[in-house]
Amino acid sequence: MLVDGVAHRTIWLSGDGESVEIIDQTRLPHVFEIIRLDTVDDAAKAIRTMQVRGAPLIGAAAAYGVALAMRADPGDNALDEAMTSLIVTRPTAVNLRWALDEMRKILQPLPAGERCGAAYRRAAEICDEDVGINDGIGGHGLELICAASEAKRGEPVNILTHCNAGWLATVDWGTATAPIYRAHDAGIPVHIWVGETRPRNQGASLTAWELGHHGVPHTVIADNVGGHLMQHGKVDLCITGTDRTTAAGDVCNKIGTYLKALAAHDNGVPFYIGLPSPTIDWTLSDGVAEIPIEERDAAEVSEMTGRTADGRIETVAITPQGSAVANFAFDVTPARLITGLITERGIATASREGLLDLFPERR
Amino acid sequence: MLVDGVAHRTIWLSGDGESVEIIDQTRLPHVFEIIRLDTVDDAAKAIRTMQVRGAPLIGAAAAYGVALAMRADPGDNALDEAMTSLIVTRPTAVNLRWALDEMRKILQPLPAGERCGAAYRRAAEICDEDVGINDGIGGHGLELICAASEAKRGEPVNILTHCNAGWLATVDWGTATAPIYRAHDAGIPVHIWVGETRPRNQGASLTAWELGHHGVPHTVIADNVGGHLMQHGKVDLCITGTDRTTAAGDVCNKIGTYLKALAAHDNGVPFYIGLPSPTIDWTLSDGVAEIPIEERDAAEVSEMTGRTADGRIETVAITPQGSAVANFAFDVTPARLITGLITERGIATASREGLLDLFPERR
Repeated sequence: MLVDGVAHRTIWLSGDGESVEIIDQTRLPHVFEIIRLDTVDDAAKAIRTMQVRGAPLIGAAAAYGVALAMRADPGDNALDEAMTSLIVTRPTAVNLRWALDEMRKILQPLPAGERCGAAYRRAAEICDEDVGINDGIGGHGLELICAASEAKRGEPVNILTHCNAGWLATVDWGTATAPIYRAHDAGIPVHIWVGETRPRNQGASLTAWELGHHGVPHTVIADNVGGHLMQHGKVDLCITGTDRTTAAGDVCNKIGTYLKALAAHDNGVPFYIGLPSPTIDWTLSDGVAEIPIEERDAAEVSEMTGRTADGRIETVAITPQGSAVANFAFDVTPARLITGLITERGIATASREGLLDLFPERR
Repeated sequence: MLVDGVAHRTIWLSGDGESVEIIDQTRLPHVFEIIRLDTVDDAAKAIRTMQVRGAPLIGAAAAYGVALAMRADPGDNALDEAMTSLIVTRPTAVNLRWALDEMRKILQPLPAGERCGAAYRRAAEICDEDVGINDGIGGHGLELICAASEAKRGEPVNILTHCNAGWLATVDWGTATAPIYRAHDAGIPVHIWVGETRPRNQGASLTAWELGHHGVPHTVIADNVGGHLMQHGKVDLCITGTDRTTAAGDVCNKIGTYLKALAAHDNGVPFYIGLPSPTIDWTLSDGVAEIPIEERDAAEVSEMTGRTADGRIETVAITPQGSAVANFAFDVTPARLITGLITERGIATASREGLLDLFPERR
């Protein structure tokens, strides 16, 4: 989508055709900086430190990480090592495993001499497939926004989102935001409530940044505010992303999604998930019981980075010295609270049958 | 309660017997500073800028504000002006109106020459009454914690709270925290989950600070985490405060309380409110429809203050330049989500009948 009026993706091949470039998302919204990945270690670090994040983009970055490894050494050991170093970078995103499995499936049978080229080709395809998937989600979600817009006789449709399931979380378009960008580009008035999404503030720092650059009206709110807005009819629709969705439609997404879904349910507000099918973990059914929840560094809660009035980037501690801090990064929203899963093939009810109707090859 | 091992209240008469001292809560947890209020304008500013905050403490500070006004000029006009300047400082806290009504009731009939002394006496009484009320809440709430402790065979009772309804929000003991301090002081093992409470972070900056100084085990979490903890059996009990409670038991409290109550309800976790009776607004019945919600300065959301690694206090912007920001400060938790209201007279069900059983004089 647009940054300063210029169309960007989040990951692309450098001019040299070998190294890979990304937007360093840890520096947004204060600094827009592009960095280059030359090795599989660079790619692993970018995922681990969340220079790239968001389930689909993690998958794309991991695929290119394997390509970078094959460029340096296309042997079996190097392939195994690349897989090992990449799989441990983030425990939750199912796309990471999906992308690595894809790469292994393609590369393992090939002679070493053919692996490098094949790896770059498959990584590029994974990126293009992600764009196509999100375009599909955008089209199906657009119908929901059109219907809401008609019901409101053209008044802006108020959509609440959480965290960043925007184009920055994918290769382009985003999952939750694809319908929003499609509606905005089509001239349908929308207004987005952006929960700041503590810790890490990926709503306030990433979603607000990308919506602003693309010209979509939006308002940043504290995470605590969603319920109040819904009680007062100020939210027409919720759309969030997902890091991992079970075959039964439970959604593991950024911590706090469950609370917003409870509020939507309590107030009769439709709650949708932008769900690219590689994010479905067909091996799981009970999300709360089966999905391990990543605990991250306490400093993400106890410290905050921002810009001072004179433009310096500073990190400040915001909790008392000596207080313990816990940082659970995800929660699970049970399928019963979800109105629908917007996939690239259409909108499924959040249930095993709903998903299997759209993905009959999984029966 | 204890600060560096020394017992403190949040507001008290200076050594000169006329001016009033408070803890500047806007500087916590980074700096512990006591400031002096000499005039009604000082008191109004302290309330408006949230150097003092929390419904009961706002009431006490307003009462002393009237006393400071009467010290300067005990005439009718000065009394009216003091009332006017104090009532507009914060729109939500019903205790503010209650304390000012109390002061007017005492002072209006008196000749000017007797007003100053009477005002200081009634302000001191309001403070002592608050301490007594919270002691009562502590006693009744202690029984709940004792029962939970027995059910867990002495394992720590995990209690989730939101915002600061601690002793810093009152004159002493706190409302939500009174049962916690009583249990801790009695040797019953407790562990408190402290939601940071964006914006203003009064959980992370005030509740964690006061629990830490008093030696109560606690862990700071992002506001988004409460639901996840409850899904996994890590919360035995929720206790929050309230800024205004309707006669039907709806609770207006810091934004986000409603979301935690929804999660508690969804997971069968008891959700209690520490409710001093002056916080009951007997004129209201439908909290969501009738209570106006204070919107505060956007900077509370878009900026964050903390301490740098080298000890400076800095304020940093955390949202993109150009993004709109909204700051709703409270929400309303409907009575149906509340297990009980812990008042100084006992624990009421959150309903008109429940409250009237404890306060029959209101029938």
